Amino acid sequence: MSGARAPRSALVIGGLGFIGAALCERLVKAGWKVAALDCLLEGGGGREGHAAAGVEVVFGDARDRLLVESLAEGRDAVFNLAGRTGHLDSVRDPEGDLEHNLRGPLSVLEAVRRAAPLAALVHASTRQVYGRAERLPVDETHPLRPLDPNGVHKAAAEQLCLQYASLHDMRVSVLRLTNVYGPRMRASDARQNFLGYWVGRLLRGEELVVFGDGTLRRDHLYVEDAVDAFLAAAAAPAAVGRAMNVGGGRPVSFRDLADTLIEIVPRGRWRLEPLPEERRSIDIGDSWCDIALARSLTGWAPRTPLREGLRSTLEFYYEHAETYGVVARSLPGAVPPRRVAAS
Amino acid sequence: MSGARAPRSALVIGGLGFIGAALCERLVKAGWKVAALDCLLEGGGGREGHAAAGVEVVFGDARDRLLVESLAEGRDAVFNLAGRTGHLDSVRDPEGDLEHNLRGPLSVLEAVRRAAPLAALVHASTRQVYGRAERLPVDETHPLRPLDPNGVHKAAAEQLCLQYASLHDMRVSVLRLTNVYGPRMRASDARQNFLGYWVGRLLRGEELVVFGDGTLRRDHLYVEDAVDAFLAAAAAPAAVGRAMNVGGGRPVSFRDLADTLIEIVPRGRWRLEPLPEERRSIDIGDSWCDIALARSLTGWAPRTPLREGLRSTLEFYYEHAETYGVVARSLPGAVPPRRVAAS
Repeated sequence: MSGARAPRSALVIGGLGFIGAALCERLVKAGWKVAALDCLLEGGGGREGHAAAGVEVVFGDARDRLLVESLAEGRDAVFNLAGRTGHLDSVRDPEGDLEHNLRGPLSVLEAVRRAAPLAALVHASTRQVYGRAERLPVDETHPLRPLDPNGVHKAAAEQLCLQYASLHDMRVSVLRLTNVYGPRMRASDARQNFLGYWVGRLLRGEELVVFGDGTLRRDHLYVEDAVDAFLAAAAAPAAVGRAMNVGGGRPVSFRDLADTLIEIVPRGRWRLEPLPEERRSIDIGDSWCDIALARSLTGWAPRTPLREGLRSTLEFYYEHAETYGVVARSLPGAVPPRRVAAS
Repeated sequence: MSGARAPRSALVIGGLGFIGAALCERLVKAGWKVAALDCLLEGGGGREGHAAAGVEVVFGDARDRLLVESLAEGRDAVFNLAGRTGHLDSVRDPEGDLEHNLRGPLSVLEAVRRAAPLAALVHASTRQVYGRAERLPVDETHPLRPLDPNGVHKAAAEQLCLQYASLHDMRVSVLRLTNVYGPRMRASDARQNFLGYWVGRLLRGEELVVFGDGTLRRDHLYVEDAVDAFLAAAAAPAAVGRAMNVGGGRPVSFRDLADTLIEIVPRGRWRLEPLPEERRSIDIGDSWCDIALARSLTGWAPRTPLREGLRSTLEFYYEHAETYGVVARSLPGAVPPRRVAAS
C-alpha cells in the first residue's frame, strides 16, 4: 500500500518439532511472517508448547494437500521438517514410515508446485540415506545404501525433491542432517537422537550406556547451526536441485562425547555395554560427513563448539525437566535433575 | 493323503498382465497350482482375457494386505509383477505411481512376511532404476539415479525387498527387467514398451517413427525369456537378497530394430523425427544391461533371437488385432492389419 516492502513469509511444516520450532523462532526474530503446520505425530518431536510467540500454528497433516496448498500460497519459502525418525520403528511399521517420510514429502512437493511454484523449498533429509560409510568422511558422492525402511523412504523423498527442481523448475534443495542435538529434542527415548536420551539419563542421575567399546565416531550438530543451514539453503540460488550434508563435520567418539557430558554434569557416570542384537543389522558403524559442499554452495558453516552446545542443551533440560520426561516421577528411586556445572 | 507330493503352488500378483499372464501359463503347464491377483489397473497391461486355463483368478489390489495374506498362505512362491509403467504418467501423477509402485510392493512384502515367510518372493523391477547409463553395459554396481518418480519408487521398492531378505530372513529376489516385448504387451500406446506401439502402427500400415538419428541402442528381451528368469530366480538360493539385471544383453540400435521389423512386415516403413521436448528430461540415452550376474546366480540366460521373438510377436498381434487396439476402426483411412511375411 505505502510501497514499503511486505515482510517475507514462510511456512514451516513440522514447525512444532525440535528443529522446526527453533527455525520458526529464528524466522520470527528476523521479521518474517511465519506459519507452522504440525500434526504432533505420536513418538515424534512435536509439542504444542514449542509454538513460538508470533507464529501462526495450524494443526494438520503434511499429506493434506489442499491444506498445504492454502498455507503455502504467497510464501517466499517453505521448509519441510515433518517426518518420522526412529530406525527400529521403521522396521516395525514400514507402512507408517512410508506415509510420513515419503507420501508426506511428495504431497508437499505437489502442493508447493501448485500454490507457490516460485517459493524456495528446503527439505530435511538425513545422513541415514547413505547407510554404512564406505569411506570417511562421507561426501555427497557416496552411494545411497540405506539400511532400513526409514532410510529408503528418506532417500526416495529427496530424489523426488531433486527431480521436482529439474522437471518443474522449482527452487528445491535438500539438507542431509547429521545427529542434530539441542534444546527441544526428545529426551524420553532415543527416537530422535541418542543424545537426547543420554541427557535425560544424566539429569536423572542415571549412568550413560555406551555401546560396543566406545570408539565409534559420529559428528554432531547444534540445532541453531542446523537452523542457519535451512536459512542459507533457502537464500542460495546455487543450492537449488542439490542435496547437501549438514553436520558438525568433526568426528567425536562416543567415549569422548560421554566424557565431555560428564565434565559438564558433575557426578555423571558412563559404562560400556555390548551392542544389542536388534540394533546390529541397522547399525551404521563409524560415520561423519564432509560438509564442504554446503559451505561452498551456501556459505553455511557450523559455529557452535560441541562443549558449548552441550552445555546450553543441558541447561535447557535442567529448566524443562518435567516437560521432556527427564524426571521419572513415577519410578521408585528417581532423583530430581541435578544442576549442571557452572561455565 | 496318499503320500504323493502335493503340486507346487504359486501366487502371481499382476497375473493378468503382459508378463504375469505368460508366467501363469507356464506355471500351469509345469503342473503348479496357480492363483493370479490383478486389479486391471487403467492404462496397465492387465486384461480379463489374459486368464490362462487352470488359473484361479482373483480381482483385487496388491495393497489389500489381508487379501494378499489369504492368497499367499501355503504358497511355495509369490511373484509380484503388479505396478504401473509409463514414465510420463509418473511425472503427471506421481502420487498414483507411489501407490502402485511402492505402497503395493511394501504391502506385499508385509503380507508374505506374515502369511508365507518361507515362500520365494520374486519382485519385478526395471532398468529404469539406473537412470542414464554412466557406463555400458550397465551392471548391478551402477549407481541408481532414476530420472522420474517411477524410477524413484521402483528403486525404493527393490531396496525394501532386499532389506526384507536380510532383516526378516526372507527369500526375496529382484529382477531388473529391460524392454520386455512379446505377445500380450500393450499395443495401443507406448506405456509398457515402445515396441508394442510400433507393432500396432506396423500392423495398421502406418509408418514407424524413430526419434533422434536412430543410432540410440537398447537391449530387448522376449517375454518367454523373462518368464524363465522369474522361475530361475524363485528356484535359486543364490538369488536371495539380490537384484539382478534381466535383459536381452545385446544392444540393438533403433534403426536396426525398425529394419528387422520391416523385413518381417512387407511394405513397412519408418522415418526419423526429433525427440519431443517433453521426453528430453527423462530420456535415458544409450542403454543396455550386463546380465552376467543373473546368469551366474541362477543359471538363467535368454534363448530367443530377436528376429524370432519379433516374428512370434507380430503373428500374435495379427491374430488378436482387435483385442489390442491394433485396428483403429474408428479412424478414417485405417487399414486392416497386414499379414507378416512367412518364415
